[in-house]
Amino acid sequence: MGKVIVSFTMSLDGFVAGTNVDREHPMGEGGDRLHRWLFDTASDLDKEMATDMSARVGAVVLGRRTFDVGLQHWEDTPYPAPSFVLTHEKRSQLKMKSAAFTFVNDGVRSALRQARQAAGSKDIVIMGASTAQQVLTAGLVEEVTLQLAPILLGKGCRLFDKIGSAIELKSTQVAASPLVTHLRFDVL
Amino acid sequence: MGKVIVSFTMSLDGFVAGTNVDREHPMGEGGDRLHRWLFDTASDLDKEMATDMSARVGAVVLGRRTFDVGLQHWEDTPYPAPSFVLTHEKRSQLKMKSAAFTFVNDGVRSALRQARQAAGSKDIVIMGASTAQQVLTAGLVEEVTLQLAPILLGKGCRLFDKIGSAIELKSTQVAASPLVTHLRFDVL
Repeated sequence: MGKVIVSFTMSLDGFVAGTNVDREHPMGEGGDRLHRWLFDTASDLDKEMATDMSARVGAVVLGRRTFDVGLQHWEDTPYPAPSFVLTHEKRSQLKMKSAAFTFVNDGVRSALRQARQAAGSKDIVIMGASTAQQVLTAGLVEEVTLQLAPILLGKGCRLFDKIGSAIELKSTQVAASPLVTHLRFDVL
Repeated sequence: MGKVIVSFTMSLDGFVAGTNVDREHPMGEGGDRLHRWLFDTASDLDKEMATDMSARVGAVVLGRRTFDVGLQHWEDTPYPAPSFVLTHEKRSQLKMKSAAFTFVNDGVRSALRQARQAAGSKDIVIMGASTAQQVLTAGLVEEVTLQLAPILLGKGCRLFDKIGSAIELKSTQVAASPLVTHLRFDVL
């Protein structure tokens, strides 16, 4: 059975997006520089890491806000896999190029159950900082994967906020590229 | 001329101490686990990194609170080098085993000037999160060295707080031990 993974590109001061995230600026003000490693300047290692992660993903669970600001940018599901959006809005399935968005109204555990079924033996990736926090504090995350960007953003959206109590991890991978440090941890 | 360095052991969620830091608990509640890599379970790499840093330090600039909570624990200056404490209190020099504490009343730039003179060609290390923030936002830090601990503390004292605007870094070293990931950055 696949793992539940939290995977983010994070600044050294813990931000995964800048301030004023909206549809035009899904990464917020100044947040685009976090993702340099995914674009033209990517190294072979960066590309390999991105491809590996994409291949692992069997389903996605994401917050409503991440869906709202990301959709126009992705023009598809964020990974080529069934994607489950946490929302209070009743809405029918939205088919995209690679897979479909399913809108889940009864909470994160239900979304994870549906994602588990869709993912088969592959992994489930959690997107959106507040969704990641919910799943982490519920004790349901098995792996944390970070691309640590060499920048202090100074302000924005923090990944590890409102966690409240300690969660022990074990480092399982460290790999440095010129643009980010790839870190992988198991949750103990 | 040596560099001005910010060097801390930090949890993955950005904390350098737990909550309720006091003289009995200089690392705060739950914060002691950050420093496992310095004690009995240290690997050869961890020991080498600690020795290397110690050899680089020609002077220390630290906040009053760090001095207050640390002194009883160190029973000396925090590194074996002249140490400059930022404080409003007028106080004469305090000689310790390895070096002396000098109390500086006229701000961080004055402390850095005095530390620079004392350090000669060696580096100046900044201790205390709020002092580090002051020196960072003043644009006076040249290197950030972190030992990233595989834990989410959930609460405590954040290193990179109140930074406010972006600071670009360049990764210059990544080295993994079982207990921490050693990261070094130049400030651009």
